[in-house]
Amino acid sequence: MLKTRTEPVAVDTGTPEEKTVEETVDEIMAEIGRKARAAARVLATASTEAKNRALRAAAASIRARTEEILAENALDVDEMTKSGATAAFIDRLTLTGERIEAMAAGLEAIADLDDPVGSVIAEWDRPNGLHIERVRTPLGVIGVIYESRPNVTADAGALCLKAGNAAILRGGSDSHRSSGAIHRCLVDGLEQAGLPATAIQMVPTTDRAAVGAMLSGLAGAVDVIVPRGGKGLVGRVQREARVPVFAHLEGICHVYVDRDADPDMARDIAVNAKMRRTGICGSAETLLIDRPVLESLGAPIVAALRDAGCRVLGDEAVRSVAAGVEPATEEDWSTEYLDAVISACVVDGVEGAADHIARYGSSHTEAIVTDNRATADTFLDIVDSAIVLHNASTQFADGGEFGMGAEIGIATGRMHARGPVGLEQLTSFKYRVRGTGQIRP
Amino acid sequence: MLKTRTEPVAVDTGTPEEKTVEETVDEIMAEIGRKARAAARVLATASTEAKNRALRAAAASIRARTEEILAENALDVDEMTKSGATAAFIDRLTLTGERIEAMAAGLEAIADLDDPVGSVIAEWDRPNGLHIERVRTPLGVIGVIYESRPNVTADAGALCLKAGNAAILRGGSDSHRSSGAIHRCLVDGLEQAGLPATAIQMVPTTDRAAVGAMLSGLAGAVDVIVPRGGKGLVGRVQREARVPVFAHLEGICHVYVDRDADPDMARDIAVNAKMRRTGICGSAETLLIDRPVLESLGAPIVAALRDAGCRVLGDEAVRSVAAGVEPATEEDWSTEYLDAVISACVVDGVEGAADHIARYGSSHTEAIVTDNRATADTFLDIVDSAIVLHNASTQFADGGEFGMGAEIGIATGRMHARGPVGLEQLTSFKYRVRGTGQIRP
Repeated sequence: MLKTRTEPVAVDTGTPEEKTVEETVDEIMAEIGRKARAAARVLATASTEAKNRALRAAAASIRARTEEILAENALDVDEMTKSGATAAFIDRLTLTGERIEAMAAGLEAIADLDDPVGSVIAEWDRPNGLHIERVRTPLGVIGVIYESRPNVTADAGALCLKAGNAAILRGGSDSHRSSGAIHRCLVDGLEQAGLPATAIQMVPTTDRAAVGAMLSGLAGAVDVIVPRGGKGLVGRVQREARVPVFAHLEGICHVYVDRDADPDMARDIAVNAKMRRTGICGSAETLLIDRPVLESLGAPIVAALRDAGCRVLGDEAVRSVAAGVEPATEEDWSTEYLDAVISACVVDGVEGAADHIARYGSSHTEAIVTDNRATADTFLDIVDSAIVLHNASTQFADGGEFGMGAEIGIATGRMHARGPVGLEQLTSFKYRVRGTGQIRP
Repeated sequence: MLKTRTEPVAVDTGTPEEKTVEETVDEIMAEIGRKARAAARVLATASTEAKNRALRAAAASIRARTEEILAENALDVDEMTKSGATAAFIDRLTLTGERIEAMAAGLEAIADLDDPVGSVIAEWDRPNGLHIERVRTPLGVIGVIYESRPNVTADAGALCLKAGNAAILRGGSDSHRSSGAIHRCLVDGLEQAGLPATAIQMVPTTDRAAVGAMLSGLAGAVDVIVPRGGKGLVGRVQREARVPVFAHLEGICHVYVDRDADPDMARDIAVNAKMRRTGICGSAETLLIDRPVLESLGAPIVAALRDAGCRVLGDEAVRSVAAGVEPATEEDWSTEYLDAVISACVVDGVEGAADHIARYGSSHTEAIVTDNRATADTFLDIVDSAIVLHNASTQFADGGEFGMGAEIGIATGRMHARGPVGLEQLTSFKYRVRGTGQIRP
C-alpha cells in the first residue's frame, strides 16, 4: 500500500536546517526522534491556552493557504491519475475548498475540547496523612502512519498536540505534497503560539525504510504508533511494531437478533448497521439470528436488507427461509466486506451468538436486539469486544457519537486504549503525592 | 540469571494429561497458551465469590501442605547450596513456616480486596438517549517471569486470578520444586471453586526457550508480561518481548532538597528515603541539593547520612562543604546502588533538579522537600516520573502504602499501567451501550 522510493527527499521538517541527501534514512529518523522527545518535554507543561492558540492559528493558516494546498494537491492527484490509480483512490486523495474548510473547522473543534492533561482522575487520603492524586499526563511521542487521505495530517497532528504529545507523521507518498502543505500550516500555528515547531514533524522522505524505523520505536523516542489506513498497512504495523499500537485490523461487527427482539426494531437496526455507510469499520458484516425466530424475524430482515440493496450470503438455515440468499462459505464469517454485502446465519441463543463472535469476530463492535433485559445483560457481559450495544446500531461505534470528541481511530487491543481513541486515550498518568514530612516507619 | 536446562521436564500443568519428553518446548508452550486463553474466557465472567473461594481454598491448601512445600524447598536449597549460591540468594530461596503462613495470609488479603471486574469507571448519556458505560474487564492472559523467590508463585497467581486473568507462571529453575508445590495449592483452590485448573499454569520446563516463547506472546495468547526479578531479567524481557511489559528496569530515585526546605524534615526524609531499606526500588540513590542551601542544609544532611552508616559519593561542591565524601564519577548519577550508598550533587533550583532527573533518572519515584508550595507544584508538574512526592519519603513508592492493596510490581512505562501495578492495573475495559432502538441518521 505504501509506495517505495529509494532516495531520501529534502523537505522542511519544521526547523531551519535542511537535510542533505547524504544522510541515511536512519540518521534522519533518529534526529526526528530526538527532536520529538525534546519537544514532548516542552509540550508536557505547555498551557491549554498555548495549545489552543496553536490550533486556531493553524486553522487560520489552512484557510489563508487554501490555494497553495489545492495547488500541491493537484500535483499529487495529477501524478496518481497518470499512474492509473482507481477512482476511489483519487477521491480519497482529492482536496476541495469544502474539504479544506472542514479540516480548518476540525482544528477549531479540537481547540474547543477540554484539555485532558492535568486533570485529576482519582484522589484519596491515607491514614498517615499523605494525599495521593492520579493525574493525567501526556503519553509522550506518538507516531502516526497513514495512507492517501491528506486530512489525517491535520486531524492526527492536532489531536496529539492537544493531549500534549509530540507527533511524528508519516503520510502516504502518494499525497506527500498535499500533506506537506497542510503540515506547514500546523507549523505556522505552533510558531505563532510560541511552541516548538518540532512538536509536529512530518517525515521528510517517502523512503519506506522510514516506516520501519518508526516501527522500531526510534531508540525509545516513540511511545505509541497509530496506523491509519487499510488492512495491509495496519497488519504490517501490528506485526512489525516494537512499540504499542493503537489500531483495529478489521471491524467484523455483528448484529444478533434474539428471540425476544422487537421485529421492527430488529429490522431497522440490522439495515442501519449494514447499509447506512458500508465502508466504515462499525458497519455490520454478519447477522446472527436466534434459531426460534429464524423464520418469523430472520426472513423479513433478510428481505429488508435485500430491498435496501444488500447482497446476503447465508448458511443453509437462512437460505431455507429466505429467498435470494447466496451460499456463504466458511471464509465469509471472518470477512469484512466494507460493501453492501452481509453474511447471515442461525445461532442458538445468546450463548451461541457469543460463541460465533468469539470465533470469527475482531473484538470491535457487536449489537444485540432484544426486549429481554437479562438476555441483553448476558450478551453485554460475555461478549469480549471493545464496544457492545443493546438495541442500537453498530454504526454508533465512533468517538464523536460517544461524545468523546474527535478520535484518532478505534482500537481493538486490550491495553491502554480500547474503542474510540480520543484525547483522553492519548494520555498517560502519574501519581502526585503531597505530605507534611512523612517518613516510612 | 536464569539457569538453562535443555531437556523439557514433565510437570503437572494443572490438567490430567502428562507431557511427553518428545514434545518440543514450543509445542508445550503453544498448548499452554491455548489453555490459558480458553481459561481466560471462563474467568472473565467468573463471579467474585468463586474467585475468592479459590483464593481462600488455596490458602487453606498452602497451610495444609506446609510440610510438603518445606520438603520440596529443602531440595531446591540443597541443590543451590551445593552449587555455591550466595547467602543472599539462599535467603531469597529459603521458605520457613512463617514465610509459608505469610503466603497463605497474602492470598486471603487478596480475596478481601474489591473485585475490579465489572465496576463502572465512567457513564454518561447521549442526546439521542444512548447510555454509555465504560466498564472494567479482565486484561486476558498475563505471563509472569520471575527468579528465585518462590512466594511470587502465590502472589502473582492470586493477583491475576482476582482480576479475572489467566496466568502463565515461569519461575526460576533454581526454585522450581518449591514453586511447583505452591502451584499445586493454587490448583487445589481453583478446583474447589469450580474454576478451570488451567487458570493458573506453571511452565513445566526449566528450558530457557520457554521464556523466549512467552516473550513472543505465544501467537497472541499472552496479553502482557510481568517480569519479577533483577535488572538482568527485566532488561532481557524489555528488550525481547513482543507484547507489552509492566516493569521497571531500575529505581534511580531522587530526593531534592530545595532552598525553602525545613532542615529537620529534609534530613529525616533524606535519611529515611535512603536508609530505611536500601534494597527496594523506592530507595533513594541520589541526593540533589539546591545551591543556596548547599552548606546550611546539604552539609548536615550528608553528615546525618554518614552517621546512619551510609557511604556518600559527591560532586566537587558537596565535597567542599562536607567531610568524608568520596568523589562521584559520571556513572554514579545513573547507578542504582541498592545498598547503603548515595550520590549527592548540587543543582540550581527546582528546574536544575528536574533537568538532572530527566537526564539520569529512571522515571520511577522522586521527592522534593520544600515549604514553598509553588516550588513544590513546579516539581510535581515538570518531573516526568511515575510517582512524584512533596515532603514525603520515596520509600512510600509501594502499592500497599498507596492503599491499592497488593501489587504485582511497579511500572515505569507510560502505557496502561504506571506506578504500583495492583488489581485495577491488571484490568482492561470495554464500552457497554444501552439503547431503545437507536439507529444512526
